[in-house]
Amino acid sequence: MSKSEGIPAPAVRRLSLYLRQLEALRETNLHTVSSKQLGQALRFTDAQVRKDLAYFGQFGQPGIGYDVNELIARLRSILGTDRTWRVLLVGAGNLGRALLAYRGFGKRGFEIAAVFDTDPAKVGKPSAPDFDMPVRHIDELADAARDLQIRLAVLAVPAPVAQSIAESVVAAGIRGILNFAPIALHLPPTVTVVNVDLAVQLEQLSFNVSAGIAPSE
Amino acid sequence: MSKSEGIPAPAVRRLSLYLRQLEALRETNLHTVSSKQLGQALRFTDAQVRKDLAYFGQFGQPGIGYDVNELIARLRSILGTDRTWRVLLVGAGNLGRALLAYRGFGKRGFEIAAVFDTDPAKVGKPSAPDFDMPVRHIDELADAARDLQIRLAVLAVPAPVAQSIAESVVAAGIRGILNFAPIALHLPPTVTVVNVDLAVQLEQLSFNVSAGIAPSE
Repeated sequence: MSKSEGIPAPAVRRLSLYLRQLEALRETNLHTVSSKQLGQALRFTDAQVRKDLAYFGQFGQPGIGYDVNELIARLRSILGTDRTWRVLLVGAGNLGRALLAYRGFGKRGFEIAAVFDTDPAKVGKPSAPDFDMPVRHIDELADAARDLQIRLAVLAVPAPVAQSIAESVVAAGIRGILNFAPIALHLPPTVTVVNVDLAVQLEQLSFNVSAGIAPSE
Repeated sequence: MSKSEGIPAPAVRRLSLYLRQLEALRETNLHTVSSKQLGQALRFTDAQVRKDLAYFGQFGQPGIGYDVNELIARLRSILGTDRTWRVLLVGAGNLGRALLAYRGFGKRGFEIAAVFDTDPAKVGKPSAPDFDMPVRHIDELADAARDLQIRLAVLAVPAPVAQSIAESVVAAGIRGILNFAPIALHLPPTVTVVNVDLAVQLEQLSFNVSAGIAPSE
């Protein structure tokens, strides 16, 4: 239960980036990598890399570096992506359909197992042209979450209904929500919410571009 | 040129959240707000709110609080969203089409002015069912950026071509990129890149849900 205690969220985010970089290095048949090499492409110092990894245990050998395959396996295990996570998608609008088609999820072990909406024009129809999976009514969500033992949901619903839908999703046993609605959800502290607000991210760009300064993420 | 110097990126991100919250408060006809009230809905302390705003100047009056309209206007000016930003969209696939339909952009002053792709099956056709704007070939991007004086682009292209497309976008004068491809772009330091990697965000959820702990963003 104490796995993530005291570990800063940015360090966890960087683990994802290290993992991606390691996978790219493995494609080039590299077997070992130093913290410097690992940080380089991502513009992090070797000290940063070592510090981030140190939160999670002992990795690599001084003077030799990290075994690429071993570090990939350990990072996947830490991030919980050494298994497949089934995810519920709530909202079958444009964004929901784009997410269904987004290959990045499947590649990283996330599988959209069911799609929900309230729109009678969508319920019972295929969720997207290339997806046979029919859209189900949101009233069936609690049953589906229990039957499929799902703990993660993606919310691609309009802002005005997001809070009430999030509450019913949580009541259905969901413990992690990726929220695309541009509002702050108020949920019990046992639920993790990651917000994706695309306009906020564009605002970061307009801030930097109007300031004439360009810090990267 | 020194507008953003020394200001931590998370503080800039929080400005967007304050702005959103203020706009919601204005809808309820609230005219003044304290730092505590402003922080409350977002789960920030009043000290955090005051510290974040202090990076950008003097706001509000002790004992009275902030004038909602005035603070909205000043935050918009700081974030550069007191004007409309025209944006180029590169990639007219599922994600590109979802972004075209995403109302969050327009609401915050970002307008997709042109859509580009390389796929001959897409070029010349309407970019999405509800959008008359035809998809243009990516070879026309430099001319369009110059003619329309555009400095921001959204990249919704597959990972393998993202780096080379990003380079041509930068060569066309673009200074800020919202990147959806799950790779780290290597670009000159004068260019700001904000990465949206949805799988990374799901990994943050799987980490927290498998750890049984739920820190919020």
